[in-house]
Amino acid sequence: MLELDAEALYVELQHGVRSLLAEGTRPDAALVGIWSGGAWLAERLQRDLALAGTHGVISSTLHRDDFNARGLVTQDGKGTDPTQLPFAIDGRHIVLVDDVLHTGRTIRAVVNELFDFGRPASVTLAVLVDRGGRELPIAAAFAAAKLALPAGQRLRLARADDSRFSFAVTGNV
Amino acid sequence: MLELDAEALYVELQHGVRSLLAEGTRPDAALVGIWSGGAWLAERLQRDLALAGTHGVISSTLHRDDFNARGLVTQDGKGTDPTQLPFAIDGRHIVLVDDVLHTGRTIRAVVNELFDFGRPASVTLAVLVDRGGRELPIAAAFAAAKLALPAGQRLRLARADDSRFSFAVTGNV
Repeated sequence: MLELDAEALYVELQHGVRSLLAEGTRPDAALVGIWSGGAWLAERLQRDLALAGTHGVISSTLHRDDFNARGLVTQDGKGTDPTQLPFAIDGRHIVLVDDVLHTGRTIRAVVNELFDFGRPASVTLAVLVDRGGRELPIAAAFAAAKLALPAGQRLRLARADDSRFSFAVTGNV
Repeated sequence: MLELDAEALYVELQHGVRSLLAEGTRPDAALVGIWSGGAWLAERLQRDLALAGTHGVISSTLHRDDFNARGLVTQDGKGTDPTQLPFAIDGRHIVLVDDVLHTGRTIRAVVNELFDFGRPASVTLAVLVDRGGRELPIAAAFAAAKLALPAGQRLRLARADDSRFSFAVTGNV
């Protein structure tokens, strides 16, 4: 049985993101969370790191490489796109936040979505968990934990009513 | 003065690419070199590793994020696209080869170009030199050398008439 303390990993992520934001003096760096787990993380990081402004939210829906097979299916089942970027992307240093890094296909999709809004100065990735299994040449600058999971298992962040994080593991080996 | 022995690094790259091709039994893996330095490397790797078939060549021209500013300017100045993929990309394990990994913007462009031809099972990146300075969450699975260069300097592979490789460093600190 896998035991991952999402709250403890969140504290690590907070330190990691603080360092990334401080690198090379990036006063204009902005957090963008990947829908849905990464968006929860970005929301809390924005508050806990006392960052000015609002975090962004981005979805991979429109650029997924299985878009033809899936069509416009979103988390809420209503076909709406949760992307919300309340600031200019052009020339901006973006710190992308996600719960789990796996194949890298979501990150490719999300970076392409970002570029639809402008040409960022840089995009850096920070995640709670890097579970390996990469299928694209994608890497996180910071991962609070690295572990290996069987390909058939799914790991995703859950958020309780009191805003506390936990991990849900589903699927068979 | 920077001394980089491109021929010695090529031998390292050859070992690295051989390992990547052997990973997880990928009999159908294909080499694709990024125009122009990576294409020279892929051509020679294809021969030295005695791989069946022909290597692919891909260019970042059509997907570059500064396409609007640059337009269709290619190496030969003739506005032609050197991309040549003489095999199906769909479901294929692709090993991308390049001479120098820097910001990652070329890799993003080239991966998008690959996806225009199909949905590869995986894309893995191998390079002669990782010079740091990443602006996107891109990483190589293998780099024969890692070094830091001033942002203003340009490092690129050159190929002599006898096919031997060397590095050319241009630009000021």
